[in-house]
Amino acid sequence: MRTRILLAVAALALPFPLLAQNGMVHDPAALQQKALADDTAYGIVEDLTTEIGPRLAGTDREAAARDWAVARLKAMGFANVRVEPFDMKTWVRGIETAEVTAPYTGAMHISALGNSASTGPRGLEAEIVYFRTMADLDAAPAGSLKGKIAFVSHKMTRTQSGASYGQFGDVRRRGPNIAATKGAAAIVIRSVGTDYHRNPHTGGTNFAEGISPIPAAALSIPDAENLERMIRRATRDGKPVKMKLVLTPRQIGTTQSGNVIAEVPGSDPAAGMILIGGHLDSWDLGTGAIDDGAGVAISAAAAKLVMDAGQPKRTIRVVWWGAEEVGIFGGKAYAEKHGATGHALAMESDFGAGRIWQVDFRLPESAAAMQTKIVDALAPMGIGRGRGVASGGPDHGPIVALGVNAIDLQQDGTDYFDLHHTPDDTLDKIDPQMLRQNVAAWATVLGIVANDPGDLLPKAK
Amino acid sequence: MRTRILLAVAALALPFPLLAQNGMVHDPAALQQKALADDTAYGIVEDLTTEIGPRLAGTDREAAARDWAVARLKAMGFANVRVEPFDMKTWVRGIETAEVTAPYTGAMHISALGNSASTGPRGLEAEIVYFRTMADLDAAPAGSLKGKIAFVSHKMTRTQSGASYGQFGDVRRRGPNIAATKGAAAIVIRSVGTDYHRNPHTGGTNFAEGISPIPAAALSIPDAENLERMIRRATRDGKPVKMKLVLTPRQIGTTQSGNVIAEVPGSDPAAGMILIGGHLDSWDLGTGAIDDGAGVAISAAAAKLVMDAGQPKRTIRVVWWGAEEVGIFGGKAYAEKHGATGHALAMESDFGAGRIWQVDFRLPESAAAMQTKIVDALAPMGIGRGRGVASGGPDHGPIVALGVNAIDLQQDGTDYFDLHHTPDDTLDKIDPQMLRQNVAAWATVLGIVANDPGDLLPKAK
Repeated sequence: MRTRILLAVAALALPFPLLAQNGMVHDPAALQQKALADDTAYGIVEDLTTEIGPRLAGTDREAAARDWAVARLKAMGFANVRVEPFDMKTWVRGIETAEVTAPYTGAMHISALGNSASTGPRGLEAEIVYFRTMADLDAAPAGSLKGKIAFVSHKMTRTQSGASYGQFGDVRRRGPNIAATKGAAAIVIRSVGTDYHRNPHTGGTNFAEGISPIPAAALSIPDAENLERMIRRATRDGKPVKMKLVLTPRQIGTTQSGNVIAEVPGSDPAAGMILIGGHLDSWDLGTGAIDDGAGVAISAAAAKLVMDAGQPKRTIRVVWWGAEEVGIFGGKAYAEKHGATGHALAMESDFGAGRIWQVDFRLPESAAAMQTKIVDALAPMGIGRGRGVASGGPDHGPIVALGVNAIDLQQDGTDYFDLHHTPDDTLDKIDPQMLRQNVAAWATVLGIVANDPGDLLPKAK
Repeated sequence: MRTRILLAVAALALPFPLLAQNGMVHDPAALQQKALADDTAYGIVEDLTTEIGPRLAGTDREAAARDWAVARLKAMGFANVRVEPFDMKTWVRGIETAEVTAPYTGAMHISALGNSASTGPRGLEAEIVYFRTMADLDAAPAGSLKGKIAFVSHKMTRTQSGASYGQFGDVRRRGPNIAATKGAAAIVIRSVGTDYHRNPHTGGTNFAEGISPIPAAALSIPDAENLERMIRRATRDGKPVKMKLVLTPRQIGTTQSGNVIAEVPGSDPAAGMILIGGHLDSWDLGTGAIDDGAGVAISAAAAKLVMDAGQPKRTIRVVWWGAEEVGIFGGKAYAEKHGATGHALAMESDFGAGRIWQVDFRLPESAAAMQTKIVDALAPMGIGRGRGVASGGPDHGPIVALGVNAIDLQQDGTDYFDLHHTPDDTLDKIDPQMLRQNVAAWATVLGIVANDPGDLLPKAK
C-alpha cells in the first residue's frame, strides 16, 4: 500500500503539460495519471450507498436514486441530464424464514428469489426432496415433487472471468420453473455464490407462461451444506427431512422505473455517440456497492475525466440504467425507443470493482487500427487482450444485438460471487485504488474511441 | 494439501511398535502421528453442529446437547459419564430489527446482546448520539443521553493471540450499563469483531445492581460504518440521525444447565486428576462450531487417544461445560461443588480451531522438568514456548483461582474474531487438518502430564 501511495503522489507531482507532451488532449498516459489520483468514482459510490442504499427496481428507493443521480450528474457538469421513464411489473420482498423441523431442528438463512410466490404468512411445511445438481432436477419424473419442497444444491466454481455464472446460475434462473412444472410446493436452492457466509444470494427467476409461480428461495451456502449433512443422516436413518418456509413477497403491479442519461456533447454529432454506463438499480439485500454502484461511478468518472481534458469528437452518453437486475428492462426500453442509429460503440461496467485485467472487442475489420491503439494504450497498465467477443454488458445487450460495436474492459471477478446479490454488497468491499485503476482504463479507452477518425456507425445488415 | 495427505498416509504405514520404540505407552511422537491421521474430533464437531446446532445456555437446545453429549462420550468408551446440573437465570432472543429513519433510510443487521432489555414489539425510535470510543461514552455527562440511543463505534485490532478482546470487548461488556446510567433509552454498538460481513457479533453484557437494563444490541461492522457515514453527513447538514429499534428478548427465569463429565480413570487416584474440556453451550446465531464445538471435540479426542494407548497414571476428567457464554456458570458451579482438591492440572480449548502455535504454563518450580519435557515434545510440531502465564481457559478460571496448575495450548486466533458469536460460526470454518494438529498437541501434553512422576496437587496457600 505504501508503494501505491508513493506512486500516486509522484503522479500528482508531475506537471500536467509534461504528461500531455504529445499534444493530444485525450492522451492515454495523461488520462491514466489523472485517474490514478482521482477519487471521483469512490465519492459517487460512497454517497449512493450511504444516502440512498438499496434501490430495488420499480420501487420508491429506485425513484429516489434517480432523483439523486440527476442532481449528481448535473453537479458533475454533464449536459442534457434527464430521465427516460418506462413502466415495469414490480416484485417486492416480504418476510422470509426457513426452519428445518424434522428429524433435526435449525433456523436457516434464506432469501426469496425475484418473482417468487408467497407461502402466505402462516407458511408452508413439507418434506424435502434433494437434488445434487440442476441436471438431477431436470431428470425428476413429472408429478414426482407433488406437495414437496425441492432442494437443489449445486456448487459454483470460482473464476476470474465470471464464466461460471452462466452455467451455475441456471439453478436459480431455471430451477424454480422446472420444480413448479413437476408439482413442487416450493423450491430452495443453494445460493449461486462462492463464499461461506450466512448471507443468501438472491437474484431473479422466471416462471413460464401458464406455470403458476411457487415460493422460491436461496439458502446461504453454510446452511445449504448443513442441510445436506442433515439429509445424509436422515437418509441413513430412513427418516424424511422437513422444512417450514415463510416467504411473503408480492407482485405490486405496474410501477415506473427509468434510465438516467447525461452527456458530454461531441464536436461531430454525425460521428455517432459512445454509449457507456452501469445500472442504477440494485438488489435489496445489500447497498448495491459492487453491483452496480461501482459501475455507475466508474463510467461517469471516466467520462468526466475525458470531458475535463477537452471536448471529444464523439458525444459520450452516460446512462445509469434502471431495472437491470429484474430483467434488463432499462436496456430493452432504451433499444426500443432509440434503436441502433447514431450509436458508434457501447461499453458497460457491471462486474464489481476488481482490477481490470483484460480487454475484449466487438469491432469491424475497419477498426483494426483503433483496436491496436487501445491494446497498446492499456498494455502499460498490465491489461492484456482477451480472446473473447465483447458483449457490451447486460444493459447494452439489446442495442449490441442491433449491430452496435462493443468493448468490454474485463474486471477481475475472483471474489465477485462472494458478494453478488447478498447483504454483503456494501461499500467496504471496494478498494479505492482498484476503483481508480478501473477509471484509468475506462478513460484511456474513452479518449481513444471518442476521437477515432474512423466510421464506427452501425451498418444495416 | 497433497504433502499433508502423503505425510498422514506415511504415518499410518509405520508399524505402531516402531513409533513407540522407547517403550512409553504415551510416547509423544506416537500420539502425534496417530492424532494427525485421526478424524475423531472432526466427527464430534460435525455431528454436534448438524444434529444439535445452536445451544444457548439454559434452553432446551442446551439440554438436547447434554443428552447428545452423554451418549457420545459413552460411545467413545469413557468411564463415569454423567451430568452435574445447576440452575441459572436464562435470557432468550426475540425479534430484532434496526432501521435508520432520518435523515436517510436503511435497514441494518443487528443482534441483541445477552441480558438486553426489550423495546417491546412496537419498538423504540430515537435520536442517535454518537461516540467514537468507549472512553468517549465514559466521558459523557450524567443525564446527557436521556431518551437517546447511544451508538459506540469502537474498532477492534486483529491479533494472533486474541489479546485485543479484553480491551475492545469492553464496549460490549460495559457499554450498555454505562449508557443506562447516563439515561440512554437504548444502546447500539459496532460489533466486537474483525470481519466485514453483515453478521452482527452477539455476546453477553451485564447491568449493575439497581440499574434498569436497556435494549442493547450490536450492529454488523458494515452497518456500523455505514451509520458513521450517515452521521458525518447529517452532522455537516445539522440534522439529527434517528433509528427505530425493535428488540424483544426476554428473561425466562430460572432453568437448568449442566456440566457433562466423562473420565479416563488413572492407575493412581492419589496423584490427582487432569481436568480438560471445552464448553458445550454456544451462542444462538451460529451452530457453535469454532465456539466451542471445536474445543469439546479436541479435548475429548485427545483424551481418547491417550486412553486407547494405555491407562495413564492420573485420571483424565473431560468436562463439556454448560453456560460458559453467559457468565461461566458451569465453571463456577463446578468450583463451588468440587473445590481444588485432587485437581493436578487444568487445560481448556476455547479459542476456535486454528493451529496451535504456542504453549504457556502456570506450574510450580518443582514441575520444571515436566515443563521442559512438554516444550521439547511440542517443538517438533513448530509450537514454541510463550512468555505468558496460563489461565487454564475461561471455565477453569474459578478452579485455577483456587491454586490449580494450568497449561494453555494457544491457538492461532487471527481469524477468530471474524466469526466469534456470529451466524458465521459454522462447520465450514473448521479446517480438518488444523483440528488434527490441535488434537496432536493436546494428546502430547496429556500423555506427559497424566504420567509425570512429580507432585502436582494444589497446595494450601
